[in-house]
Amino acid sequence: SEVKKIAVIAGDGIGPEVVAEAEKILKKAEELFGYTFETEHALFGGIAIDERGTPLPEDTLEICRSADAVLLGAVGGPKWDNNPKELRPETGLLGIRKALGLFSNLRPAVVFDCLKDASTLKPEVLEGTDLMVVRELTGGIYFGEKLRRQGEHGEEAVDTCVYNVTEVERIVRQAFEIAGKRRNKLASVDKANVLETSRLWREVVNRIAPEYPQVELEHVLVDNCAMQLLRRPSSFDVIVTENMFGDILSDEAAMLTGSIGMLASASLGEGSYGLYEPVHGSAPDIAGQGLANPIATILSLALMFRMTFGYEDAAAAIEAAVAEVLDAGHRTSDIAVDKSKAISTTEMGDLIVAAI
Amino acid sequence: SEVKKIAVIAGDGIGPEVVAEAEKILKKAEELFGYTFETEHALFGGIAIDERGTPLPEDTLEICRSADAVLLGAVGGPKWDNNPKELRPETGLLGIRKALGLFSNLRPAVVFDCLKDASTLKPEVLEGTDLMVVRELTGGIYFGEKLRRQGEHGEEAVDTCVYNVTEVERIVRQAFEIAGKRRNKLASVDKANVLETSRLWREVVNRIAPEYPQVELEHVLVDNCAMQLLRRPSSFDVIVTENMFGDILSDEAAMLTGSIGMLASASLGEGSYGLYEPVHGSAPDIAGQGLANPIATILSLALMFRMTFGYEDAAAAIEAAVAEVLDAGHRTSDIAVDKSKAISTTEMGDLIVAAI
Ligand SMILES: CC(C)[C@H](C(=O)O)[C@@H](O)C(=O)O
Ligand SMILES: CC(C)[C@H](C(=O)O)[C@@H](O)C(=O)O
Repeated sequence: SEVKKIAVIAGDGIGPEVVAEAEKILKKAEELFGYTFETEHALFGGIAIDERGTPLPEDTLEICRSADAVLLGAVGGPKWDNNPKELRPETGLLGIRKALGLFSNLRPAVVFDCLKDASTLKPEVLEGTDLMVVRELTGGIYFGEKLRRQGEHGEEAVDTCVYNVTEVERIVRQAFEIAGKRRNKLASVDKANVLETSRLWREVVNRIAPEYPQVELEHVLVDNCAMQLLRRPSSFDVIVTENMFGDILSDEAAMLTGSIGMLASASLGEGSYGLYEPVHGSAPDIAGQGLANPIATILSLALMFRMTFGYEDAAAAIEAAVAEVLDAGHRTSDIAVDKSKAISTTEMGDLIVAAI
Repeated sequence: SEVKKIAVIAGDGIGPEVVAEAEKILKKAEELFGYTFETEHALFGGIAIDERGTPLPEDTLEICRSADAVLLGAVGGPKWDNNPKELRPETGLLGIRKALGLFSNLRPAVVFDCLKDASTLKPEVLEGTDLMVVRELTGGIYFGEKLRRQGEHGEEAVDTCVYNVTEVERIVRQAFEIAGKRRNKLASVDKANVLETSRLWREVVNRIAPEYPQVELEHVLVDNCAMQLLRRPSSFDVIVTENMFGDILSDEAAMLTGSIGMLASASLGEGSYGLYEPVHGSAPDIAGQGLANPIATILSLALMFRMTFGYEDAAAAIEAAVAEVLDAGHRTSDIAVDKSKAISTTEMGDLIVAAI
């Protein structure tokens, strides 16, 4: 079959460890399903700052651009937190999103059975929670003009939030498409009672809505959404929102499932191109000790198979293998009730490979 | 004693009903403690739109300005939701905050014993939760320039977020003061890894911090804060943040206590001036039926006594009376387990008056 090129960014902290397990899965998928993958590793984030003096080296971008998809471990850590802006991992993150045109961030928030009790929410409230936050990722206040100046009342800082109709249309249309393939419910989140960008957002949503008559649409104000996620998480299916609101709400949604260490995410560009990464961070405190849980990264790879390559068979097989290994009671220490029985990062990876 | 002037804004929905109960408390406080209050009612919100063609009539502002404090019921409702901007209750709300210089919104989020089970969080997680969100209320993206224009990619909308050093200083200093009178912990929330206004914010916080060496300070990114509120709500004492973040996080914090129908809030200006209102909304669905719970409004009045007038005796007496009535098992229908035993708005008000 066609060779699929995957740019692999291990990144910082536990990134290299979890990515290594996902690469084992890649090999197994080649053997079992006859696919062919070509991987190329690239430096990004803190390690790129250390080795190259920039979080996003030009050749990393080249490797990503010439690939069909990107697999990312995690980036960042306290080591670089006080660096000047150009030398911070986050700057690389914003840069790569913009450079690769990754305008849509999909964050499924589901409850894993084995982690039901890990949530701080009551199990009966959480029951059936399975939602997806579709976050606009290359616009809004993250990318608008920023400045410092002297004003009447001393120094002042300015951030600018800009959205154009085209940007809103493409993310909203994608969210309607996704909702149509799930439970046909879409919540569009904005602050239309205060913000002009939100009013534009809502107009576009209302204009596109008639194209998807089967999808039930609700507009939810962002403050109210932060409450409703707590009150009735299972009532949400797809939530679409702008960059900043999506940052806050997707983290809230992930946390309330209790399964944050197991969640995958996709950042999609035009066509089928995408960057896939676990929702969790680089966890520098446990890095290099074989304690990290590789499941979120492995599930991110499954998402890549499904969304970028259309390899539904392999995607489903990976997801089933993860479920099987968890059902059999295997746990890394982050999700183990009895920590003394916890298995290591590589053991977990190997078990999943074997189960595929 | 000195006459204290209170502007009373009943507003829309259940506003008039809950405010009426608070006014009974006012009378009782005069009798018991020898204070003298003069109240003047003013039109605001939806009712002002209907009767005067504007959500914030000039004479309402005059009444508020000549008063020592403002008591507000609730404003808004679906009736006005599709009005043009100038004819919406929210526009009045933003207008009154700006006109009265109410730069600081205090939102205590506490768990009422009788409502412990109303939260969607597990009781053991909630245990001991007692936090206060200090939200900047007259700056940021709410009040920056807004516009529509034609861009390269079609129509675009712009919102501008501006903060100057003076604005940040006054709210941050106030938050440190409040933390110093509570448990000496302050979490300053920003998005300093992305926003210029957040970087200015953090600089100011770090500059002021040494003036309050007894207060333990942490900086928390807004997305992380949305998670930590769920994970460890009881670990927060005071949270200070900018307008938009405060809108989202204070609603999340209020909801997680399960006690949202009982929470009071204060919006403070220079000196001791303040506007006091319940956290809950106008609940048009139950308006006029005697079903509303007046406790949040009554507790808002207690906050006014404490914060604007320095009448700690009356404030404490009101709070104790509320606790006593709840301990005796009296409930309005919103908080009643057995709805058939629920008492009405006026019954609840009368019981609290009697208990003072
Ligand atoms: C690190 C930061 C810039 C980033 C963001 O806010 O987008 C992160 O929080 C995320 O959600 O991916
Ligand atoms: C109605 C709206 C403008 C207002 C705000 O966002 O400030 C409300 O949500 C609040 O928090 O008081």
